[in-house]
Amino acid sequence: MSPPTHILRFVAVEDGRVHLGQLVDTTRDVGLDTLQGTPVKAYRIDGSIFDGEVTNDVLTAQHLLSPVSRAECNYIRCLGLNYKDHAQEANMALPEVPILFSKPHTALADPYPAVTPIPKCSQDGTSDYEAELCFVLKKSGRNISEEKALDYVLGYTCSNDVSARTLQMATTQWSYSKGLDGSCPIGPVLVTPAAIPDPQNLSIKAIYNGRVVQDGNTREMIFSIKQQIAYFSQGTTLEAGTIFLTGTPAGIGFFRQPRVILEDGGDMRVEIEGIGTLANKICYMDCCQGAWMQLLYHSTAKVYGWMSTKSTFVTVASTVASIVVCMN
Amino acid sequence: MSPPTHILRFVAVEDGRVHLGQLVDTTRDVGLDTLQGTPVKAYRIDGSIFDGEVTNDVLTAQHLLSPVSRAECNYIRCLGLNYKDHAQEANMALPEVPILFSKPHTALADPYPAVTPIPKCSQDGTSDYEAELCFVLKKSGRNISEEKALDYVLGYTCSNDVSARTLQMATTQWSYSKGLDGSCPIGPVLVTPAAIPDPQNLSIKAIYNGRVVQDGNTREMIFSIKQQIAYFSQGTTLEAGTIFLTGTPAGIGFFRQPRVILEDGGDMRVEIEGIGTLANKICYMDCCQGAWMQLLYHSTAKVYGWMSTKSTFVTVASTVASIVVCMN
Repeated sequence: MSPPTHILRFVAVEDGRVHLGQLVDTTRDVGLDTLQGTPVKAYRIDGSIFDGEVTNDVLTAQHLLSPVSRAECNYIRCLGLNYKDHAQEANMALPEVPILFSKPHTALADPYPAVTPIPKCSQDGTSDYEAELCFVLKKSGRNISEEKALDYVLGYTCSNDVSARTLQMATTQWSYSKGLDGSCPIGPVLVTPAAIPDPQNLSIKAIYNGRVVQDGNTREMIFSIKQQIAYFSQGTTLEAGTIFLTGTPAGIGFFRQPRVILEDGGDMRVEIEGIGTLANKICYMDCCQGAWMQLLYHSTAKVYGWMSTKSTFVTVASTVASIVVCMN
Repeated sequence: MSPPTHILRFVAVEDGRVHLGQLVDTTRDVGLDTLQGTPVKAYRIDGSIFDGEVTNDVLTAQHLLSPVSRAECNYIRCLGLNYKDHAQEANMALPEVPILFSKPHTALADPYPAVTPIPKCSQDGTSDYEAELCFVLKKSGRNISEEKALDYVLGYTCSNDVSARTLQMATTQWSYSKGLDGSCPIGPVLVTPAAIPDPQNLSIKAIYNGRVVQDGNTREMIFSIKQQIAYFSQGTTLEAGTIFLTGTPAGIGFFRQPRVILEDGGDMRVEIEGIGTLANKICYMDCCQGAWMQLLYHSTAKVYGWMSTKSTFVTVASTVASIVVCMN
């Protein structure tokens, strides 16, 4: 078969194991399909995300995972203020060089049904979204020219640069406030350059509780993906598996009138042309008066629940009915 | 035997392999011993840096390595402006919360004989040192209290937060300019809390070409190590193997009159009480008029040389005499 173009990572219905797969119907938005309970089919990929080969065996995705795993990614590089309209709404001068902060790989998170967890330290009315085009490197390099930069790209997907604004504003450096656990969901599918030959002409939207709150196009980036790779590889080895978040267009919650906040139970989606929809429910964590419980539902799956009382975590697994509960 | 207190990672003379070891004579400064060619002896440690057991077998260190390897460390967290006198020399207000930026693990580097490489993009007269106390986490945690924070510390060592000031000043975020390849040498030995019960009362010096250019004490930190762990673990899993650089005292080269610059061939040392001396020679890289060659000498070892012509790298290995050459 031909090389993969739409790569999923998922737990399979058939064997309960984690697999890579090539989406069977590449016209589907697997993020929306997963939300709506429509079965997602994929040809199993043997090998790694970097060198896998597509087989003829078809599996059913029970539970989508981030296309890149934590084990494959050591470092998440994020662009700040990389869209003109966002720099304007932030009342900041256009940057003369790309602005880099980072997230640890503990921030990496899966699409729905995984929630976006908001920890206690950012439950102050300033938890925020940033819809971003994400790309992943397929090979390591250093001092990469702009001309060769796209040869290093494995694929593109959606991401949300979840941000804790009060913590962000308290200091000049952003790597803590934007690096909380689960603050970097990516997915639902990694689309290779064969299917996205021009990453600088894609519609990108954030949709919160059904309302479009960001509506941009990647052509509005100040520094293109080529330029990002060339600039940040100066004197610096960019490793295969590195994830880049390429900046967000205007419309973040903090600057909206009235302000938009990621609230417990909220429905957050990032939609990018040619990729699909990254969906996550927002869940406020660690905020228990005694205990909190979260149950995640999967149509054909076991239910994984986490119960906590005074920091004692108990993992429970049982088969229950179709519910998503986030109790505080 | 008792648990290790002074942990080395090194290539052994006896078998040419990488080992962990417990320093035999813990009164020695193994950084200086290595520079001077004095043999460094260590009891072999079996197991990992997190759970190793000291044996009775004595090995000789031929070549010191960073006590923590890249495979063990996913993320390097660095404090900015964490000494009062340094904030004053930078003409910055004292921070109200700890300031965090990061380095990728590709920045991690070994003590002498490994050089500190200065890539072309920072060979502009603004390459700089920052002597810092470094600590390493021995277990993962989240929402860690100040009271329990030091229970998470595996040990302490010296580090140099090598910084490219022009690149740093070009943007608000520091993670690129301070994250170049090799910009985070650590060592020479990791000293556990059993031997350093109070990390907040240690003399710390930077010595460049024989001159003391920074002379501080860790008691002058604005945010103590306990406070750093507690603050940055809010909503965030700090993984075992994480390296923290805890900030630098006054005296960085950029603010000195006249300015001090890391020049090709310079002799850079970070000396911390109870730990010893992290030494590195400075080597300007990628600056060839046609080609550059670097040869690293090890007393009983093969020589590893890298030769480059117009980005074509050729690895050569041969047995030659005792030289350290850095030709441009």
